[in-house]
Amino acid sequence: MTATNEFDAREFRSALGTFTTGVTIVTTLAANGERVGLTANSFNSVSLDPPMVLWSLAKTSASLDVFKNASHWAVHILADDQDALSNTFAKKGADKFADIEVTEGISGIPLLPGCTAVMQCKTEYAYEGGDHIIFVGRVLDFARQDKKPLVFLQGRYAVAAGKPSPEEVQNATTTSFSSNALDYLLPRAHYQIYMRVRAHHESLGLNDPQYFVLCSLSAQNHRARGEINTMFSTTGHRITQTDIDSLVERKLITTGQSGNDLILSLTVDGKNLAMKVIAHSKSIEADILGQFEVWEAVQLKSLLKRLVEITDTGLPAMWEDSQRE
Amino acid sequence: MTATNEFDAREFRSALGTFTTGVTIVTTLAANGERVGLTANSFNSVSLDPPMVLWSLAKTSASLDVFKNASHWAVHILADDQDALSNTFAKKGADKFADIEVTEGISGIPLLPGCTAVMQCKTEYAYEGGDHIIFVGRVLDFARQDKKPLVFLQGRYAVAAGKPSPEEVQNATTTSFSSNALDYLLPRAHYQIYMRVRAHHESLGLNDPQYFVLCSLSAQNHRARGEINTMFSTTGHRITQTDIDSLVERKLITTGQSGNDLILSLTVDGKNLAMKVIAHSKSIEADILGQFEVWEAVQLKSLLKRLVEITDTGLPAMWEDSQRE
Repeated sequence: MTATNEFDAREFRSALGTFTTGVTIVTTLAANGERVGLTANSFNSVSLDPPMVLWSLAKTSASLDVFKNASHWAVHILADDQDALSNTFAKKGADKFADIEVTEGISGIPLLPGCTAVMQCKTEYAYEGGDHIIFVGRVLDFARQDKKPLVFLQGRYAVAAGKPSPEEVQNATTTSFSSNALDYLLPRAHYQIYMRVRAHHESLGLNDPQYFVLCSLSAQNHRARGEINTMFSTTGHRITQTDIDSLVERKLITTGQSGNDLILSLTVDGKNLAMKVIAHSKSIEADILGQFEVWEAVQLKSLLKRLVEITDTGLPAMWEDSQRE
Repeated sequence: MTATNEFDAREFRSALGTFTTGVTIVTTLAANGERVGLTANSFNSVSLDPPMVLWSLAKTSASLDVFKNASHWAVHILADDQDALSNTFAKKGADKFADIEVTEGISGIPLLPGCTAVMQCKTEYAYEGGDHIIFVGRVLDFARQDKKPLVFLQGRYAVAAGKPSPEEVQNATTTSFSSNALDYLLPRAHYQIYMRVRAHHESLGLNDPQYFVLCSLSAQNHRARGEINTMFSTTGHRITQTDIDSLVERKLITTGQSGNDLILSLTVDGKNLAMKVIAHSKSIEADILGQFEVWEAVQLKSLLKRLVEITDTGLPAMWEDSQRE
């Protein structure tokens, strides 16, 4: 625990930043008819009956007078896909409302679309709060939409997901062979995807070992046969001399002796065919990952990467170090 | 968008609930020396200079008078692993501080351990806020700890993770064969884990096909040989007659004809050996998942399950429907 007696503003911000918040945009209409809006994460609920919410605005804000004089304003709780909007309204100047299809709320206040919730408020109190003014508004009307909310955590946009239930934890830590077991899910997912990949390379006259040879040479050309075989042996198969002979015969690879090792190299034709099978395999991947949200795809790959690191058994690297992450 | 003109308290709560928050516990010392504390998610920062924070307390709270009279209080921003503590302080009555090693802060206020941040405050203002009082405190001292914060989202504890960076999104949606490719990560993770599993069943005289026969019969006994073979053929291997003969000879399975199908059944010895290999495989899984946080393990399995569902090609089910999720 970092104890601090004298105040370091940065360290204080950092401590405050451990409190996760949503992100809101507060909008109003200035007396001169100008639409005003800004991003705030200092929002919170205050009262249910009467319904009230609050947010704080820096006394140095260019919009302070507008909000002090405004009778009404609207708080928009932003959705997961609105980080760009949040950034726009966090900046100074320019017409933040350009290109946004706003609707008109109570007293003409501009309402933004696509938020998880919009609350139209009448200023009830404006309280003193150090270098900020705390605006407390009475909620006159609100609307809600089923969207995942945008989250702000330690100075960065984040996504939140419900904590696993005891049952989910139980399932994740199950000790029986079941449809929750990693040693069922991982091979099943792998093989089901591979079945689609295989259908394609078989149509090009390549069997599994030959497909593997092309892919591994494509990741790094000129590899020893023993190295490729070591990687491939995890499948329980071996790359036979017949597999290699057939690739040589089709002029997809060439072989050369280096000491005791046979070095395999892709030819131009081999490279082209490898590109073709990889492109097909990538289209399958894109199709599958397209059914996940982007952050889930990122999460899936990041967890699989950790699995690969944790279970590293010294298999040869697929790529040269310089090309790896 | 659900527009609401007349107020439905539940619907209003629901709209408020789309604003994600952290979770705090506010503590103080009553005039009679009693330690008082309660869970609040109505916390927020107010001012940096002077440093101020606020939170709201229901006027109906049994602790209202204590906080109204208290000169000092402390806000604890809870960490990811403190949901039980949050629950304790959200309840009424009982000695919430029992079994907690508190330290004494300014004016004797009790400070809780293990939080992401603790802010010791002096009451600066107590403002009217409908059915709540808004307490604004001047932060006299604070401490911060590097822990993942607890998050509250739509009435449920949650965990938040930083939104993927553009680079991470790029990597997750890469179209080249690279160390970010799903068709590299998935087989590599699978095979590296399987190498450990294989070492064990080979030591028991079982090859891959035989191991697969035992596992699939353990998931559901009395299966047709064709069904097992269809599942296993995704590996590129077949279960040979020799594999089956050897299992029969070792009295691990029995076979019986049913129409055109050969039905394989585990014997008691077979069940015992299957239990043994599965237990070993589970210990490998536990060892690997132990290197992830629980919510990550839940996430990994949940994403793999979705992968299995999305890529379903009509392979026979490993378990009978009643035993599946």
